[in-house]
Amino acid sequence: MTYPDPPRLIDSAPAIELAFSAAERSAVYRAIFERRDMRHFAGGMVAPEAMRRLLTAAHHAPSVGFMQPWRFLRVASASLRTGLHALVEQERAATARALGEREEAFMRLKVEGLREAAELWVVALADGREKHIFGRRTLPQMDLASAACAIQNLWLAARAEGVGVGWVSLFDPVAVAALLQMPAGAEPIALLCIGPVQAFYEEPMLQKESWAQRSPLDDLLFEDSWGQPLGKP
Amino acid sequence: MTYPDPPRLIDSAPAIELAFSAAERSAVYRAIFERRDMRHFAGGMVAPEAMRRLLTAAHHAPSVGFMQPWRFLRVASASLRTGLHALVEQERAATARALGEREEAFMRLKVEGLREAAELWVVALADGREKHIFGRRTLPQMDLASAACAIQNLWLAARAEGVGVGWVSLFDPVAVAALLQMPAGAEPIALLCIGPVQAFYEEPMLQKESWAQRSPLDDLLFEDSWGQPLGKP
Repeated sequence: MTYPDPPRLIDSAPAIELAFSAAERSAVYRAIFERRDMRHFAGGMVAPEAMRRLLTAAHHAPSVGFMQPWRFLRVASASLRTGLHALVEQERAATARALGEREEAFMRLKVEGLREAAELWVVALADGREKHIFGRRTLPQMDLASAACAIQNLWLAARAEGVGVGWVSLFDPVAVAALLQMPAGAEPIALLCIGPVQAFYEEPMLQKESWAQRSPLDDLLFEDSWGQPLGKP
Repeated sequence: MTYPDPPRLIDSAPAIELAFSAAERSAVYRAIFERRDMRHFAGGMVAPEAMRRLLTAAHHAPSVGFMQPWRFLRVASASLRTGLHALVEQERAATARALGEREEAFMRLKVEGLREAAELWVVALADGREKHIFGRRTLPQMDLASAACAIQNLWLAARAEGVGVGWVSLFDPVAVAALLQMPAGAEPIALLCIGPVQAFYEEPMLQKESWAQRSPLDDLLFEDSWGQPLGKP
């Protein structure tokens, strides 16, 4: 196979036809760098048209074998929201106990915004996933990976729209599935708090609160075998 | 708790301080809608500076408890690339057999670009993840979800840069881990083909090839209980 005129891709001259403009590229990176896992919300509401754009962005995520395993359930009922909040509080306490020496530090963190967020959505993997084998014979968990990409799309679109999103995974999936009458085989993976915020955190909230720091990028990069540093070009 | 002057968020007037400009919002949605899982590559190379930007984007993904479980291994050795390609071919044949009546349709699809892509990277979950309990006591698989968000960040940044990305999950993770000398507990989740392409597909390749179609968004949205359609605002 020959490659007639492969697109040039050097730093100062990205492939003209295929790359976005410099301004567009900056906007994409801005969304990536300024997206935050929000825990503080300002009430209010999300316009239905904006919410629809966020869901459409989610639905344009990649999925293994194009299986589109994601389902999005809006929590409209106040009593249901209260029920979910109670399940999260229960798991928050259980997690704190399991953390041992970090229990107190954990309990000082705000880890959810279920009551304050304008919108609460539950993201779940659909039932009937066992029939999708493409890309999943040896890695069945790729459906979760696809659904996570959908959530990331929604998250980035929300940042661009000025809407905060927090992904809460402090819950017992069996209890949440029961509360929402999910069929056997469906699995909740996220409680998404979505809504207006007063401000986005300048840095990740858990970094600001000294729970953890971002690792240097080079510590995460290897070449050819695990632990071998990336060669310099 | 009171909410003094919550940011307004109606469709025609997004929260002025927090939303991106209209042009920036469009760029973010463009990346989301024009990103494709690429299987055809044009050789060439990716400038190291561009590759570094893609990895930096990945590293700014959300992660459960800020655990940053992702590791990125660049395949520089030609023999290692050949070895990975052989493992993928092996799994491609095994998947085809497992698909039964869809075996022939599957074998007609191009499902990888390992040999043609300028860059081949293996994404893996790090070893030692069991010590991270925050957000994972009942949902340990949230580390995979985080790493998938990192890959989606890289993918969107690559689209903006005009660089193609394909996520191959047709492999036996145990064999790939052994080939790359991963420690116990580390798990490969993706072979990423990254590089210049002649063009991005107009629509998802698997849709173009009639393997599957995108579901109507409304089929995936529920309200308050599974299967109950979303109420109209």
